[in-house]
Amino acid sequence: MNHDKSEKTDLSTLGEFGLIDHLTKDIKLKNKSSKKGVGDDAAVLRYKENEVIVSTDLLLEGVHFNLVYTPLKHLGYKAVVVNLSDIYAMNCFPRQITVSIGISSKFSLEDIELLYDGIKLACEKYGVDLVGGDTSTSVTGLVISITAIGETNKSNIVYRNSARINDLICVSGDLGGSYLGLQLLERESNIFEEGTGISPHLAGYEYIIGRQLKPEARKDIIEKLYEMNIKPTSMIDISDGLSSEILHITTSSKCGCHIYAERIPISEEANRMAEEFGIDPLTAALNGGEDYELLFTADLNHHDMLESMTDIHIIGHIVDENKGKKFINPDGTAIDIKAQGWAHS
Amino acid sequence: MNHDKSEKTDLSTLGEFGLIDHLTKDIKLKNKSSKKGVGDDAAVLRYKENEVIVSTDLLLEGVHFNLVYTPLKHLGYKAVVVNLSDIYAMNCFPRQITVSIGISSKFSLEDIELLYDGIKLACEKYGVDLVGGDTSTSVTGLVISITAIGETNKSNIVYRNSARINDLICVSGDLGGSYLGLQLLERESNIFEEGTGISPHLAGYEYIIGRQLKPEARKDIIEKLYEMNIKPTSMIDISDGLSSEILHITTSSKCGCHIYAERIPISEEANRMAEEFGIDPLTAALNGGEDYELLFTADLNHHDMLESMTDIHIIGHIVDENKGKKFINPDGTAIDIKAQGWAHS
Repeated sequence: MNHDKSEKTDLSTLGEFGLIDHLTKDIKLKNKSSKKGVGDDAAVLRYKENEVIVSTDLLLEGVHFNLVYTPLKHLGYKAVVVNLSDIYAMNCFPRQITVSIGISSKFSLEDIELLYDGIKLACEKYGVDLVGGDTSTSVTGLVISITAIGETNKSNIVYRNSARINDLICVSGDLGGSYLGLQLLERESNIFEEGTGISPHLAGYEYIIGRQLKPEARKDIIEKLYEMNIKPTSMIDISDGLSSEILHITTSSKCGCHIYAERIPISEEANRMAEEFGIDPLTAALNGGEDYELLFTADLNHHDMLESMTDIHIIGHIVDENKGKKFINPDGTAIDIKAQGWAHS
Repeated sequence: MNHDKSEKTDLSTLGEFGLIDHLTKDIKLKNKSSKKGVGDDAAVLRYKENEVIVSTDLLLEGVHFNLVYTPLKHLGYKAVVVNLSDIYAMNCFPRQITVSIGISSKFSLEDIELLYDGIKLACEKYGVDLVGGDTSTSVTGLVISITAIGETNKSNIVYRNSARINDLICVSGDLGGSYLGLQLLERESNIFEEGTGISPHLAGYEYIIGRQLKPEARKDIIEKLYEMNIKPTSMIDISDGLSSEILHITTSSKCGCHIYAERIPISEEANRMAEEFGIDPLTAALNGGEDYELLFTADLNHHDMLESMTDIHIIGHIVDENKGKKFINPDGTAIDIKAQGWAHS
């Protein structure tokens, strides 16, 4: 448990305005677009050359995270990453975040420091400045709201609605791992809570547990695509499963798609875990959420370059709308793609 | 009650991604800095000439609002206004907001439409575009997170930390009304909940109830100051009571202040309500919250112009730090200013 209060400092000792000052006192702004950070009514940014990209996410205890098995530092890290992922999915680079948290009385100062350690670690890793936010009492659960702000030149922005017929459909990394990691954590925490004295059995599944508890945003993929001069024709990040996301792209782009089941990347651990749970690993890849990989379409001309890139997989292509939105099985049979993402989104 | 579910539409009928589309489908972007609104991973804005100002607020059920006496449309309106107030307090003009809401199952589609009606009304009134946001399930209470984005030229931005000795201290509107309106609403809702059959007794207090339920941001004051070519030397909005806010200004500006008790503007209704509750109206003005008026300092040269302006009150002046931070009573006695704002901030 994250919120054992023994020998911990009650939040009230810092006084009404002390907490946010305490949490943010060591923050130094690194990006030249960050002009004024925490400490006034609002942050001040300067974006004279580029477009400004803004994305917001809300994470709620009991819906988006379970504190029984989620370390607060990981939670802070993930809360930031989830937002940055949205900015990268526009083919843009995040520069600032603001963080608002609602804290119930079960948390100590040390707990909130851990949460902020994770937030700051993600800021460090992704080169992002924490420029604003506040803390507030919550009488319900822990609430984390993050807004990410990024930039790129107008001509580089990639939307969802611009996929074209014959474009390649590509995905980074592997899929389904985060969902299967979550199933494992839920199972072990249920066993633990039943008080059987059985320790959580997580060995051999470190990768998929990491996918769930401490995902990364694919900054590296975006940087590689820039380097190779490949601008995707459309892009989205996979927060709700491949099915949902390809439907977002094809619906808004008014086109169809054929995706080949055997090309969908699934990790060895995810396959093994799916087998243990008796579920089809493909179902986890298509409908599980929170992989935070990038799904994008690209011109056929880039085929060879994309195929040579580490951690990018060409899984299908865009077709005319009247040819449908289909997964093609290895035996050639096709099934219509349906969205069955996270219920909480 | 706002969430009677009789003859109302269950949120699940719209499906997972239908809700945000439904709520935002009629939104048209009005500001030229708004390039792409709701519907992708992030919003796209352009601010080539001005600085970008960003502020975030989190409103939590049971802490920041009580749905027993807060109509959802008012709540949506207020949630926006509270954020815009932070942007005006930087001497800037808001242009966009993003809205994330966490919704528990007790709410119907019609409830959330009402909330959004209020959000859209505030956007309309203040000329702001809703460019992003999402909806999510909440297993606790209603959660509203809003980020406001605004702009002005670099030279016009006003911070908290730049008040100077001899500057005038000014406040807009009147103070304490929102707090006293809240006390009245709480009292009447408690009587109502006791089931005595006594109807809420609110007549004669419409102004202070409005101050609590449907506050306005002081766009008009900022516009007037621009017109008259008065740039405040420091500014903050009054969300936590005059005492807290003047301490923010004087502490960050490293100065003291003398504020004259008899000059603090208090409405007739607030005076009357305070008398009924047996509390000092000045205490409500100093320590009550949520007035969303502007507190600013200005050069002594502007004295006559400021004095002639409707709804601006000169309440004191900035002094050297070693002269203290004091309220001066009509009899000449002085008391040290202490922060006793909202416990939940």
